[in-house]
Amino acid sequence: MLTVVMAGGIGERFWPQSRRKRPKQLLDLTGRGSMIRLTIGRLAGLSEPEEIFVVTNVEQRGPILQELSGMVPAENIIGEPVGRNTAPCIGLSAVLLSRTYGNRPMLVLAADHLIDRVQVFQQSVRIGESYVTERPALLTFGVKPTRAETGYGYIEAGEIVREQGSARIHRAKAFLEKPDVERAREFVENGNYYWNSGMFMWTTETILGAISTHLPELSRVLTAIDGEIGTRPLDEVLKAWYPQAPSISVDYGVMEKADGVVVMRAEFDWNDVGSWESIRDVHPADARGNVCIGNHVLIDAADNTIVSRDRTVAIVGVDQVVVVDGGDTILVCRRDRVQDVKKVVKTLRDRNRDELV
Amino acid sequence: MLTVVMAGGIGERFWPQSRRKRPKQLLDLTGRGSMIRLTIGRLAGLSEPEEIFVVTNVEQRGPILQELSGMVPAENIIGEPVGRNTAPCIGLSAVLLSRTYGNRPMLVLAADHLIDRVQVFQQSVRIGESYVTERPALLTFGVKPTRAETGYGYIEAGEIVREQGSARIHRAKAFLEKPDVERAREFVENGNYYWNSGMFMWTTETILGAISTHLPELSRVLTAIDGEIGTRPLDEVLKAWYPQAPSISVDYGVMEKADGVVVMRAEFDWNDVGSWESIRDVHPADARGNVCIGNHVLIDAADNTIVSRDRTVAIVGVDQVVVVDGGDTILVCRRDRVQDVKKVVKTLRDRNRDELV
Repeated sequence: MLTVVMAGGIGERFWPQSRRKRPKQLLDLTGRGSMIRLTIGRLAGLSEPEEIFVVTNVEQRGPILQELSGMVPAENIIGEPVGRNTAPCIGLSAVLLSRTYGNRPMLVLAADHLIDRVQVFQQSVRIGESYVTERPALLTFGVKPTRAETGYGYIEAGEIVREQGSARIHRAKAFLEKPDVERAREFVENGNYYWNSGMFMWTTETILGAISTHLPELSRVLTAIDGEIGTRPLDEVLKAWYPQAPSISVDYGVMEKADGVVVMRAEFDWNDVGSWESIRDVHPADARGNVCIGNHVLIDAADNTIVSRDRTVAIVGVDQVVVVDGGDTILVCRRDRVQDVKKVVKTLRDRNRDELV
Repeated sequence: MLTVVMAGGIGERFWPQSRRKRPKQLLDLTGRGSMIRLTIGRLAGLSEPEEIFVVTNVEQRGPILQELSGMVPAENIIGEPVGRNTAPCIGLSAVLLSRTYGNRPMLVLAADHLIDRVQVFQQSVRIGESYVTERPALLTFGVKPTRAETGYGYIEAGEIVREQGSARIHRAKAFLEKPDVERAREFVENGNYYWNSGMFMWTTETILGAISTHLPELSRVLTAIDGEIGTRPLDEVLKAWYPQAPSISVDYGVMEKADGVVVMRAEFDWNDVGSWESIRDVHPADARGNVCIGNHVLIDAADNTIVSRDRTVAIVGVDQVVVVDGGDTILVCRRDRVQDVKKVVKTLRDRNRDELV
């Protein structure tokens, strides 16, 4: 199976450990390896190495190449000259895949999500693959909400279009932007709404057709790129054309508008590990609620998150903070303010401290 | 004038920046140089370099020698083989000084206190010197309390025995151990009580006589040392005899019991910089009450103390903490718990992490 792994994120929310050249997907947030390595590892038996394509930005290509050495051929690691959100990234991948493989199903994954129960994941993907092969369909994986999360988009599920064992594929009735907490609660209680996981399945032909219908501007850029490949190096072609692509997400640009959009219930465990707070989902806390990665000394400290590499972190009389050793930087943040770590990154950029971001 | 600088402290309360081999007196806590360098610098015009003696422990002698290179002759930096509190340290100094200089006034200072208004300090010392030269007296410098501090001992002042300009020397009526907060308040309101600064003035003969009367056990050790000096290297003599000295402070062992004890009001500004909290006395706070040494980014942060060397410290949504970059270690401590930094040091020692203390 063809798989595209989107690895262009910069992961500001994991500052100070994530940096421009060492983004979230290259961090080992679980103790089991980098996020991208785990993502590729999950494809064993599903996609051959040469069937896996990783799309990142030119700046990260070197580190990702090194991280995935032996897992993915170097020529399958594509560097975007500029970031243009998911629609151009997916369109470009579909163009490259169809040149080599023609019309084939392609799975689209994020490089920095965590999925457990790999066998269930692979089963779901196989069922999705057969569905999108049989008819033109744009399939997205929906995650059953476990809390009234305001950080994700939601998908309203319609009637069931395929049922196979415990697997369910629904028609997607609506794509809903990140809700406020009240609406999020309604969605969770209603039971008919899924988190939009950002994982997709379709054939190269179906997605390129949908882009041509709903994002003609992007389609023109992709056609230009397709026409020039082979006449000069891919990087040069992309540098010439890719910046002209509109910056738009595939959800907003295609999924919300297209026909044949379906949502498949994810039966595997999914976690997008979106901030330092979600580190607590993947590491056990001690009896006093402290999650500690690395050496530490705690004196009257409760409900903290400590992430260190080589340094010993001592906490005295402090609760509910996250402390992160970033090497040249130290972060101390109240746990309910982890989203504002992005403000630190912005401040450093404003001060021209680019070496720290 | 002969001056003895006591520099044996380990300064656990300034962990993680202070370490066994880099104790508080070697730290630059003010941005103006190490505490010991400032202490020696304050003696310019008062004591010649060869008249200054520094007593430390053997482990710190190397670093202190380096720090004071050119300020104090190497042979004047004495290394105690073990710490035995202030009475043996002062007795040993008096023995060494009287061998070279006979009966002369000697000023005793701590290496890690901060004194401002140096001219006033030198004037006070000169007046004290003439007082203890004219009669056998044990003079201690008392600091007018500015708050109900429970961390210091107090001295009750009796009648004035010398008045010279604004200088006052009182008979010392009583030495009082660290009080509880209620008694401390009484002392401050009463107006007749001084903080015991741990700075002294007497002649070599007077202090050795007082030790002989009140600490005969220490006196025997000092006599043995005095008898062997010259027959073999000082370090060997000290190694053989010094551990047998009783571990006792000069306040408790001598001052509380002796006759002729006087207290001179310190008219200079004195600060013992006793913990990370007192860093705030010597560095100005910003408009939101943050005292910051080193690079930092503050997002919604107030009343914090940040001490960093090379690292950038980012604080998001956290108030009232002290964050210290210790190189191989990071401390995050609630400001009203800084005394418990000692517990971190103890924990690390218990875990055999001696390289971190």
